[in-house]
Amino acid sequence: MTYCVGMMLDRGLVFMSDTRTNAGVDNISTFPKMSIWEQPGECLITLLSSGNLATTQAVVSLLDERTKSPDDRTPTILGVPSMFQAARLVADTLKEVIDEHAQAGMQADSAFHATMILGGQIAGGPPRLFLIYPEGNFIEACGDTPFFQIGETKYGRPILVRAYNSAMTFEAAMKLLAVSFDSTVKANLSVGAPFDYHLYEEGSLVTGRTGRIEGHDPYFQSLSQGWSDALKAALDSLPDFDLS
Amino acid sequence: MTYCVGMMLDRGLVFMSDTRTNAGVDNISTFPKMSIWEQPGECLITLLSSGNLATTQAVVSLLDERTKSPDDRTPTILGVPSMFQAARLVADTLKEVIDEHAQAGMQADSAFHATMILGGQIAGGPPRLFLIYPEGNFIEACGDTPFFQIGETKYGRPILVRAYNSAMTFEAAMKLLAVSFDSTVKANLSVGAPFDYHLYEEGSLVTGRTGRIEGHDPYFQSLSQGWSDALKAALDSLPDFDLS
Repeated sequence: MTYCVGMMLDRGLVFMSDTRTNAGVDNISTFPKMSIWEQPGECLITLLSSGNLATTQAVVSLLDERTKSPDDRTPTILGVPSMFQAARLVADTLKEVIDEHAQAGMQADSAFHATMILGGQIAGGPPRLFLIYPEGNFIEACGDTPFFQIGETKYGRPILVRAYNSAMTFEAAMKLLAVSFDSTVKANLSVGAPFDYHLYEEGSLVTGRTGRIEGHDPYFQSLSQGWSDALKAALDSLPDFDLS
Repeated sequence: MTYCVGMMLDRGLVFMSDTRTNAGVDNISTFPKMSIWEQPGECLITLLSSGNLATTQAVVSLLDERTKSPDDRTPTILGVPSMFQAARLVADTLKEVIDEHAQAGMQADSAFHATMILGGQIAGGPPRLFLIYPEGNFIEACGDTPFFQIGETKYGRPILVRAYNSAMTFEAAMKLLAVSFDSTVKANLSVGAPFDYHLYEEGSLVTGRTGRIEGHDPYFQSLSQGWSDALKAALDSLPDFDLS
């Protein structure tokens, strides 16, 4: 499993992804699930992926190699004219990889499935955020649905739905995401720290602040404990059910 | 979908279940998912069910009819000598109903599956709580895992895990469950009010306080709003992520 969130704010885009992958509970590894492509001043694209690791790595490598080998530069993730075309390119590549393995004999192609969040900005256009399905189609975030989650989305969703605010600062958004990720790791062993993040500032067209939060990070630890205490206090502050 | 919780407290057992059933989003109905059997002073048993409605109704009817027709009273849910035997009887009945329909030609018998929570007390024994699987086996709650959820369990789980306390009053437990159910209905259309509850007092061996919380219930409405506000305040009270 996996947990990744991509979020549109007034200030820009926020991405966070966990790094745990597993093939059974006795075969766990740490892999980054965030990829960033940039051409400073022209194009900045971030991709988060969940699902079959072989599929998502193949997609990233295909997108990557097409940017690196000059002879094979069409299509290339850094040469697309708009974020919509970037989403089409990623979606087509994803579908191509899944189809290839599905045809190799496996009946249930769902085993090779992957779902991705793509966000970024290309010079001349606004920042945009997409959710890409294994079938090769995708949807775009809007004011009503300004964030996407992939992987184990349920445990961390209630707080996102309630506390998200497009005007929030990057600092507050990071706190919100840390709480959402904490609720998820507490409930699902297949989601785990460290968490990678990327804070993209609208209009900058370069990679923004990136980093990694370790599970033993003092801020994350104190937030986890503080959130637990605050939740209990919040519940205590509400009136009990009246049985009289 | 469904959401039901059974919980062991020092004071007794608490049960809550939603009432929405659906066959597709355009075919929704309201059915109670809680059944209570009692023989005052001897035996009190509560059953919560999730899964295929035809299966769960058949199980309840079989358990019910076996209590009503004197000639067919073995086995009967009210004649079992212990809660363990009650769980075995329910589990066997559940497996029997699923097997019957699975053999009728349907390949994926999972479509007929159901999962149940059984709790209660029989004179001479302590209150006990079980989670019964469609395969006909079951597990029992203990101090480390003092509550069970069935159906759409994920959205409402974080607050249960964090705020449950075996010493809590029935009033506080009802508040906790109302918050857990509220988080679930906010995220999953297939779980819906009204919610049925039963508060069983240890040792009483009779049906305790039962009732139904409607979606427009003023307490539930104010709790829902209050919880939303309290969550946001709790998040605000924690320090933002430091990006400096």
